[in-house]
Amino acid sequence: MTPVITLTTDFGLSDGYVAAMKGTILAINPQVTIVDISHQVKPQDIAGAAFLLGTAYHYFPAGTIHVIVVDPGVGTERRAIALSTPVASFVAPDNGVLSYVMEQEGARPGNTAHQRTLSPGMKAVALTNASYWRHPLSATFHGRDIFAPVAAHLSRGVLMEEMGEPISSLTVFPVPRPQRLADGSLSGEVIYIDYFGNLITDIKDADLPKGDLLVEVAGHQIRGLSASYAQGAELLAIIGSSGRLEVSGKNGSAAQLLQAKVGDGVMVSARKPVP
Amino acid sequence: MTPVITLTTDFGLSDGYVAAMKGTILAINPQVTIVDISHQVKPQDIAGAAFLLGTAYHYFPAGTIHVIVVDPGVGTERRAIALSTPVASFVAPDNGVLSYVMEQEGARPGNTAHQRTLSPGMKAVALTNASYWRHPLSATFHGRDIFAPVAAHLSRGVLMEEMGEPISSLTVFPVPRPQRLADGSLSGEVIYIDYFGNLITDIKDADLPKGDLLVEVAGHQIRGLSASYAQGAELLAIIGSSGRLEVSGKNGSAAQLLQAKVGDGVMVSARKPVP
Amino acid sequence: MTPVITLTTDFGLSDGYVAAMKGTILAINPQVTIVDISHQVKPQDIAGAAFLLGTAYHYFPAGTIHVIVVDPGVGTERRAIALSTPVASFVAPDNGVLSYVMEQEGARPGNTAHQRTLSPGMKAVALTNASYWRHPLSATFHGRDIFAPVAAHLSRGVLMEEMGEPISSLTVFPVPRPQRLADGSLSGEVIYIDYFGNLITDIKDADLPKGDLLVEVAGHQIRGLSASYAQGAELLAIIGSSGRLEVSGKNGSAAQLLQAKVGDGVMVSARKPVP
Repeated sequence: MTPVITLTTDFGLSDGYVAAMKGTILAINPQVTIVDISHQVKPQDIAGAAFLLGTAYHYFPAGTIHVIVVDPGVGTERRAIALSTPVASFVAPDNGVLSYVMEQEGARPGNTAHQRTLSPGMKAVALTNASYWRHPLSATFHGRDIFAPVAAHLSRGVLMEEMGEPISSLTVFPVPRPQRLADGSLSGEVIYIDYFGNLITDIKDADLPKGDLLVEVAGHQIRGLSASYAQGAELLAIIGSSGRLEVSGKNGSAAQLLQAKVGDGVMVSARKPVP
Repeated sequence: MTPVITLTTDFGLSDGYVAAMKGTILAINPQVTIVDISHQVKPQDIAGAAFLLGTAYHYFPAGTIHVIVVDPGVGTERRAIALSTPVASFVAPDNGVLSYVMEQEGARPGNTAHQRTLSPGMKAVALTNASYWRHPLSATFHGRDIFAPVAAHLSRGVLMEEMGEPISSLTVFPVPRPQRLADGSLSGEVIYIDYFGNLITDIKDADLPKGDLLVEVAGHQIRGLSASYAQGAELLAIIGSSGRLEVSGKNGSAAQLLQAKVGDGVMVSARKPVP
Repeated sequence: MTPVITLTTDFGLSDGYVAAMKGTILAINPQVTIVDISHQVKPQDIAGAAFLLGTAYHYFPAGTIHVIVVDPGVGTERRAIALSTPVASFVAPDNGVLSYVMEQEGARPGNTAHQRTLSPGMKAVALTNASYWRHPLSATFHGRDIFAPVAAHLSRGVLMEEMGEPISSLTVFPVPRPQRLADGSLSGEVIYIDYFGNLITDIKDADLPKGDLLVEVAGHQIRGLSASYAQGAELLAIIGSSGRLEVSGKNGSAAQLLQAKVGDGVMVSARKPVP
């Protein structure tokens, strides 16, 4: 079985940084398949990286190793970690980029809102064993010098336990969830804007109230959910491919049409259908 | 022999959509080599996708499976199809993205200008057998839920016939071809503008009249064909790598220099060389 | 051992050009792993391509074949070449794109500043044997028709000697190096600006004078080196991942902050630390 390593970074595609990571991986394990998730995370956008990883990792074969390098604290005391769950492994700085993974894989609440505790079936280590790193270690590029070689060694079967000290919780940010108001309506927010300008919200299909829906965002109202882009109006609400409520433009960017941004409020209310 | 699957989409590279397709493919067939053709087709630009696929597919090994997801009709009644030809297979929405493939592989004219009939050696099916799809099926991302898994199953040797109902014609748009005027000159058009700003036309090498050529586009005249970019003038005409007449800027974008766009007319006339 | 071929071009990612190269390679050797270094070299930017290749090639497994196609002279008399060194092979136009490779691998000065002579352990040929090319040969795309097939044949074990005539020197540009002034300070320059807007200089870690450093660039002064991005001020100087002095913005692009560009002067001076 060919092991798979994925890469998610904010490095862009114009320089040699991503290639340096791939070369480092292939020099340790030439038999691995490397897949880019994205290298166009906005610089230092931990929340954006966490979300897009959360929409992609579970489609990969069991045992895939996901490397995430959005790392504004590189060279400081922030921990470098590896996490394994029943479905996949992750190698990343301990700065919140695994927040959606931790939520979706059922990690338990931690002592603070900025921590989550591993659940049974998860294991994690702080990457402290320098014998699995590249040397000399740079102060600015742990993607190449720590995360890539650690992932490559994991893909060859080295046990995570040998990579460093066991830890029981990871740093997270609180994943946004909508609030249900007294009148049954939902108050959520835009959590990600994709390449097409779709506004992806924290409201999941199962959260939606029953009845004729009214979606309000950025001063606009949308009545009802569309079954497809083509069947919707110029501005439409739809359950997107990650099972979340999205606001989309039929022929262009909803974000541009509405001048909307991440964090904008989204209200969903329902009128009981007239029988 | 490692099977190859290529991907052509308008998804861009910033989100997790392309990765979700790749993960889905690798989860079904970990032994496949996946190659990106482009993910930067302009959103919903079926003609652009069709052209660029047409310039790339025939360089791949025989039997390569090409997946194209430029799909404004996703979730509507438009068909999802698979096509096999003697050189390659294709998995795509039936919306015209295979127009250049059908022309180049010798499909026959259909009943209307918007259809082509399979020629002997071709086979096609409408993808109706949901047992080869990913479930639950989303309304907005058949790339991940239908096209990717179907391609992966084909790459494992599942017969196309098992994927759905045989069909005998595909939806196409009429591929532009130049008109030969009474005086022997050619009236063609710009069909694609590439990353360098080269204006690629529907006029092929073999179409060109004999003699000293005069190329007219966007109000500019160019005398003669250049043998290379370096040997041409600031604005030059050349036979490009796809065997078509192109108008190029030596040190910059011809599209920008000329404010030209897809669909602009291109006239080529010839003066018999003075003996 | 799976052979690796890397690609560095100025083709961008929107068209089918890179894919045509990959298809051509896979049609000759389906067992190869292809890795993109970058396709976003600025059009015709030979120096930029040379630098970024220089920061990436040595991370790849020994024997990797690097293909570089930044080729403004395509179709002219410029030579197409292959070079092998003890660590890797290179296939490229002979226009300077291997300048950093030649310096880093210890090639000897040539007869002029625009040539370097191979050192023992290196071999090179001019690619003149058309039987290893794709035909018909286009005038505008030797990446697809010469460089890709030559690399693919090399990856199958064809000897470089069969590809053409041996040559003993390559075309280079003089790789910038800082000058040490009479007072011990260094006068260098910005040689590359990366995606983050970091100003990468020709001043290496070992070049730096001892003492409290003062870095001057684009009319700004920076005192001292930072140990990490996070610990630095808004504008900081740091030894980057390629072992060079870099000027960085903590939360944004230094290039934008300073309106700096490639070629701008960088001065580094040191005051002996007060004991």
